[in-house]
Amino acid sequence: MEPACGEMRQIKVGVLGCGTVGKGVCRVLLENRALLAARLGMELTLARVADVNPMTPEGLGLPEGVFTTDPSRILEDPDIPIVVETVGGCGVARELVLAALRAGKSVATANKALIANHGREIYETAMASGVDFMYEASVGGCMPIIKTIRESLAGNRVTSLFGILNGTCNYILTKITHEGLDFARALAEAQEKGYAEADPTMDVDGFDTVHKLAICMTNAYGMHVDYRDIYVEGIRRITPMDIEFARRFGYRVKLLAISKNHGDRVEGRVHPTMVPVKSLISDVNGPMNAVMLSGDAAGDIVLYGQGAGMMPTGSAVVSDLVDLARNHLCKACRRVPVFSFQDSCMAPARLMPMDEVRTRYYIRFAALDRPGVLSRLSGVLGDHRISIHSAYQKGRESDGPVAVVLLTHEAEEKNMQAAVKEIEAMDVVGARPVLIRVENQGAVED
Amino acid sequence: MEPACGEMRQIKVGVLGCGTVGKGVCRVLLENRALLAARLGMELTLARVADVNPMTPEGLGLPEGVFTTDPSRILEDPDIPIVVETVGGCGVARELVLAALRAGKSVATANKALIANHGREIYETAMASGVDFMYEASVGGCMPIIKTIRESLAGNRVTSLFGILNGTCNYILTKITHEGLDFARALAEAQEKGYAEADPTMDVDGFDTVHKLAICMTNAYGMHVDYRDIYVEGIRRITPMDIEFARRFGYRVKLLAISKNHGDRVEGRVHPTMVPVKSLISDVNGPMNAVMLSGDAAGDIVLYGQGAGMMPTGSAVVSDLVDLARNHLCKACRRVPVFSFQDSCMAPARLMPMDEVRTRYYIRFAALDRPGVLSRLSGVLGDHRISIHSAYQKGRESDGPVAVVLLTHEAEEKNMQAAVKEIEAMDVVGARPVLIRVENQGAVED
Repeated sequence: MEPACGEMRQIKVGVLGCGTVGKGVCRVLLENRALLAARLGMELTLARVADVNPMTPEGLGLPEGVFTTDPSRILEDPDIPIVVETVGGCGVARELVLAALRAGKSVATANKALIANHGREIYETAMASGVDFMYEASVGGCMPIIKTIRESLAGNRVTSLFGILNGTCNYILTKITHEGLDFARALAEAQEKGYAEADPTMDVDGFDTVHKLAICMTNAYGMHVDYRDIYVEGIRRITPMDIEFARRFGYRVKLLAISKNHGDRVEGRVHPTMVPVKSLISDVNGPMNAVMLSGDAAGDIVLYGQGAGMMPTGSAVVSDLVDLARNHLCKACRRVPVFSFQDSCMAPARLMPMDEVRTRYYIRFAALDRPGVLSRLSGVLGDHRISIHSAYQKGRESDGPVAVVLLTHEAEEKNMQAAVKEIEAMDVVGARPVLIRVENQGAVED
Repeated sequence: MEPACGEMRQIKVGVLGCGTVGKGVCRVLLENRALLAARLGMELTLARVADVNPMTPEGLGLPEGVFTTDPSRILEDPDIPIVVETVGGCGVARELVLAALRAGKSVATANKALIANHGREIYETAMASGVDFMYEASVGGCMPIIKTIRESLAGNRVTSLFGILNGTCNYILTKITHEGLDFARALAEAQEKGYAEADPTMDVDGFDTVHKLAICMTNAYGMHVDYRDIYVEGIRRITPMDIEFARRFGYRVKLLAISKNHGDRVEGRVHPTMVPVKSLISDVNGPMNAVMLSGDAAGDIVLYGQGAGMMPTGSAVVSDLVDLARNHLCKACRRVPVFSFQDSCMAPARLMPMDEVRTRYYIRFAALDRPGVLSRLSGVLGDHRISIHSAYQKGRESDGPVAVVLLTHEAEEKNMQAAVKEIEAMDVVGARPVLIRVENQGAVED
């Protein structure tokens, strides 16, 4: 091994938290130790692993003396310049990350909730200490989404982001699509298979996705985007019926994170979205993730891979560790800014209000089968400057209401919401209409 | 702008060669100058552009005094630490790259032929001068394939590479597939649209792809792979008939670069390949590129994007320039090794001979419609330890030979070649059989 730009023979890494992701990091470091050294020119040594539960490292094969229940044995060890936070959550994890940064250690994490909620504080602490903070694994698991935005698209004005960033939702939607299960059944299956947690709120209500979108937008545009300002809608109301109608119109339903750069302002939203069957994004199935990053020079780049899991996430964290080690070795900390842009160039977020967003819509009404219903519905839409692209009315099979499905041309969100409100009040319309937004993007095939 | 780790206010770049790619580089640097500065913390200044033809920069809007016909005004300028080679080819380009490296300048290029043919010499010259040599744009245009292998998969043993790396071939195959054109017609259309050159040999015979595969393999495995040792077969013999048979069996035909890591040896080959219709790779159409990179920890990562063109390639070169500028700024040249692995860890290539490669096969015979033909064909295959997965015989429409199509289980290449030779000598078989290899990979959908 020849050091690339220094004299050191090893760089010590401390891992805080030994859950699924922490274990993945340990395994990659231990199992591919020789390979890492051959690439880095230096041993990346797993010096210390801390966890409150002394049973966690069982079966991991940690070398003697590496495990501790005391995080201060990492935080206060001056020989450990690089720390991994894999505790999760925003409580202890935040304190540990801030303590590590203040102690002059560079930090890597997979914790999107932490960055989304405390990114600014962490960023400022890292700035003040002159160390690095990296988080490739926080978005898209093994896929290099952050690196691609920060480094590979450095010469580009990012024009849009578009992606499936939550494997749980994608698994559930795939089940509904391919097997006609309803949401509850599909969720139960996802829980059985370990793709969904006992409390699925973070995933199925879109919060996990919106955290990730905020991180991507911050890096893409150089503005501190607060995820609480991004419109979010989960997948609980998606039914096999709507997926079947989507199919007839040539679409599939995905939970998408969408952002578009309008120059003066940027758009950000997370919601179930119909994407053309002829797009690569629509072919991303099961727990897989994919994102389309578009730049003014590069055009569209799609990345696809496993968005979660012990080893894929461990792989992404270790790629950060290699970058951190290289920076440490070359005394080049802060070689790439934490959020892609120089601090002095970070701007306040200028988000377009959801009301002003323009998109196409799929609307399904449960209407009484009386003459003139379709005309009345389309009349209300027309009054709100919404024109209809296609319509489909399902023949009545019982005495109940019939499904009237409309696909609109592009319209403004506030007009659509006002029209839906007016229609809901009509005597011929039953339960709350279903509204699914439609995007004709996603790497559409020739 | 605040400098990240230095005092400089600008870094000067010289561009050698102002063809399509050189123009793309200039345009990205000029059009996104402010964005680049906001990310880099420093102006990335297009200081000099050299080309033999004084007419080339017309319409580019180069600032006064930037253009020159004399490359020594770049090579001998001590204020230009970073040089782009976009001359193309292996003659002058090689001399200019070596001269720039020897003058202590870091170099970025998009020139795959140069790296494939002279990579070792360039690598050693860069090593001796302590400067960087980068070539992201040489493989896959705007997609960060090299960066993903070198950096994002740093913690992984790369287990396989699998990709569509030539847009010309993919455009032609898409035309044959979707419109039933024959090869000559599809090639002519590709030439009309600017996707193929007047002399299409480099592209359609697979040489461009094999150059790119050798570069990827060198980075993935840390061994100097010579493209001349990789099996290569182009797409000239692909017919609409074979593509139609592929469709019936559930496959599409793509020109694939394939490499698998067998531990003691690695496999590398470029040839038309049948991939499952249900794979993402099979959905990559027109001039688009895609690659699936697999690692033992990350699993499969697919990248998709424009593999060529002025701006996508310019974008990739500029991403290298940003990396080079950051290294220059932080005095961290050679932060990442040229071919991913430390020099002392680069191993000689251990390529598996094509004869020993195991894959599945599609074979189409033109056979006389006599009793027992299928039995004789399958008997010969069986004698060579090749078992048949599916068979299809097309009913006779005229007095000529009938098509007999066989899909085999996995078999060894040398057995298959021996069997085909024996079958060719049979009296009931007409023209040379068509052999297309089959891979059941490529990010298959659930």
